Amino acid sequence: MNSDPRALAAETDYDHSQALHRLQLHYQSMPPVAAMNVTVAGYDGLRLRLHAPLSTHVNDKGCAFGGSLASMMTLASWGLVALHIEEALLEAEVFVADSQIRYVAPLFADLDVEAELAADAVWPSFIATLRERGRARIGLVARALLPDGGIATEFTARYVAIAKSRTASRPNG
Amino acid sequence: MNSDPRALAAETDYDHSQALHRLQLHYQSMPPVAAMNVTVAGYDGLRLRLHAPLSTHVNDKGCAFGGSLASMMTLASWGLVALHIEEALLEAEVFVADSQIRYVAPLFADLDVEAELAADAVWPSFIATLRERGRARIGLVARALLPDGGIATEFTARYVAIAKSRTASRPNG
Repeated sequence: MNSDPRALAAETDYDHSQALHRLQLHYQSMPPVAAMNVTVAGYDGLRLRLHAPLSTHVNDKGCAFGGSLASMMTLASWGLVALHIEEALLEAEVFVADSQIRYVAPLFADLDVEAELAADAVWPSFIATLRERGRARIGLVARALLPDGGIATEFTARYVAIAKSRTASRPNG
Repeated sequence: MNSDPRALAAETDYDHSQALHRLQLHYQSMPPVAAMNVTVAGYDGLRLRLHAPLSTHVNDKGCAFGGSLASMMTLASWGLVALHIEEALLEAEVFVADSQIRYVAPLFADLDVEAELAADAVWPSFIATLRERGRARIGLVARALLPDGGIATEFTARYVAIAKSRTASRPNG
């Protein structure tokens, strides 16, 4: 029996709830993210949703600070890439390479952010490239939602994943 | 004698150190900014510099979290716009309208960020437009610096200032 939780996930179909729990712990382990009071609010296989209270992110105008919205969308997209790499049973460091944000409307409510794949990107070729070349790039989009479902902010970004060397941790593997 | 510090500043030439102190207090009044442990590190009339310790902003890779860098550059540029509006003895709300970030190199050191006017923008026309129309837009650039003076991240953004109505607070003015 294999006790590696990732191998187990592969045997028993991938368990989203366990993966989200690990992502939440991973987020909490980073001081700036712990300070953001972020909760992983959901993942349907396509979109990752994060939530944070307005009180933690309120600016001098009573709405969400632009820098907080930028952080939340950067974090949601990063998390979605990390989830897909984990689902593929790979290990990689994920970096944001560039991002563009449009602030459409001020947000006077809690921060609800969702991230998904960019329209011109596909996960299988990203994963295949990462597996074959040890490095791959992928486009993501994210947004912060208004309470009525409208858009507060729009985000597009590219992320780079670099496979972790296995030689250090698995000298016999 | 006029005890309004802004009027006094106009009479005695504009006092940068007092303005920076007010900016630092303003930053600290916003919960997400207070959590960022940001210090106003300097202002020479052209560039506003902010500093924050890496320990507050470190990610899972031991370098500065991309979202923190986005926040710091958004904040530095916002502060520079606010300083120029104050120097002109105007009162306005300042919003970020859009931003673009390039992450050039990971930053394994404290966050030193500087903001300045974009190459194609000028302060006098921004201030004149704000004074005449009650609303104006300006382009900013910012960057996070590596310890050797190189570039960790590059940021361009547009900010919108909207003059505060005087009728509410000054019914006789």
